[in-house]
Amino acid sequence: MGTYSVSSLNKVVRGPKRANYDVQTINTILDDAFLCNVGYIWDSKAIVIPTAYGRKENKLYIHGSLKNRMMLSLLEAGEASVSVTHLDGLVLARSAFHHSANYRSVNVFGKVRKLEDPDEKMAALACILNHMVDGHWDHVRQPNEKEFNATLVLEISMDHASAKVRAEGVNDEPEDHNSSIWAGVVPIRQVAFDAISDELLQPDVNIPDTVNRFVEQNK
Amino acid sequence: MGTYSVSSLNKVVRGPKRANYDVQTINTILDDAFLCNVGYIWDSKAIVIPTAYGRKENKLYIHGSLKNRMMLSLLEAGEASVSVTHLDGLVLARSAFHHSANYRSVNVFGKVRKLEDPDEKMAALACILNHMVDGHWDHVRQPNEKEFNATLVLEISMDHASAKVRAEGVNDEPEDHNSSIWAGVVPIRQVAFDAISDELLQPDVNIPDTVNRFVEQNK
Repeated sequence: MGTYSVSSLNKVVRGPKRANYDVQTINTILDDAFLCNVGYIWDSKAIVIPTAYGRKENKLYIHGSLKNRMMLSLLEAGEASVSVTHLDGLVLARSAFHHSANYRSVNVFGKVRKLEDPDEKMAALACILNHMVDGHWDHVRQPNEKEFNATLVLEISMDHASAKVRAEGVNDEPEDHNSSIWAGVVPIRQVAFDAISDELLQPDVNIPDTVNRFVEQNK
Repeated sequence: MGTYSVSSLNKVVRGPKRANYDVQTINTILDDAFLCNVGYIWDSKAIVIPTAYGRKENKLYIHGSLKNRMMLSLLEAGEASVSVTHLDGLVLARSAFHHSANYRSVNVFGKVRKLEDPDEKMAALACILNHMVDGHWDHVRQPNEKEFNATLVLEISMDHASAKVRAEGVNDEPEDHNSSIWAGVVPIRQVAFDAISDELLQPDVNIPDTVNRFVEQNK
């Protein structure tokens, strides 16, 4: 699937050994999460807001209400910066200086486009929901006209992207290895627990396979 | 402990019912995490970078290398935007439109100051490490002069802050309650696993209580 070319926008300057521009690596990190942090400029300030997203090929999709300040600011700017991070562990070194974290993160920069075509917009909404729970769009009541029209959907083109991955043990200074200070890694993971059905469910409605599969894969 | 006053910078416009300006609520959400997302402006673009942080009273501390582009951009701007999010669950509604997430998030905006006083700077480094694993600073080899001088520490004053919390079940349209579509919540949590000691440890070095306590509290 190739690699992203390196520009001043996606070049990883700090810790370049951990940098990765491989499309497959970047897509896998993006597909393992459903919450991203979006950066936008408002009143000359950089604001960060968490939001759900979906990915299809080299496009990300986000949605919000018609009056959402972040969405409108992104549209006005015509470009967006998106960050996704998985925290995989704490790296507790002998020295304070070498404390670190294991993580997989991706930064995306690209052009923003409002989806106006109804088919394209509906497909993007399905993409966002299925990105959260694979295949679940087909198990829910799809948007009616009022809901559809009240939703703003933006496409972010992944024009520049980079990943940064740390997945290793402690890197202490050699002279610290003789000390009696403990060092190690505490693994960390985001896990899902069994689904809790809504109290108002009609009788005999079972948890769909899509939800059970999501829970199994994230236990 | 009071509340933050509401300004255009921290006012929660979308979903105001979920907004909270209570200092205690905001501090609790901040103290439950150690990774934040920082927004900064570079080349007229809003960039988002994840980084570790500590909190003391109404100050956040972040650190990085002397040449870190984010740190230098924040210093130049003289202000920073910080976002912290805990994902607590997926809210899977009967309707696509009412899909949501349970979460606790905080946004902070404030002035940035470089810590130059050595005592203040060392205290901030201890704060960042102890924010990750409570009390662990006293169990590690503290920074030597070279390491200390190679580290840039910034204080972000929490001049404006707001929390947004969703912690509830599914909110479907009443007319959807009669349908045979499933709805419910999938709880999600970030958990820690038992510490894995570094292979190069000296004999008879045990995992410190601070680390065991962290793992217990996050299991």
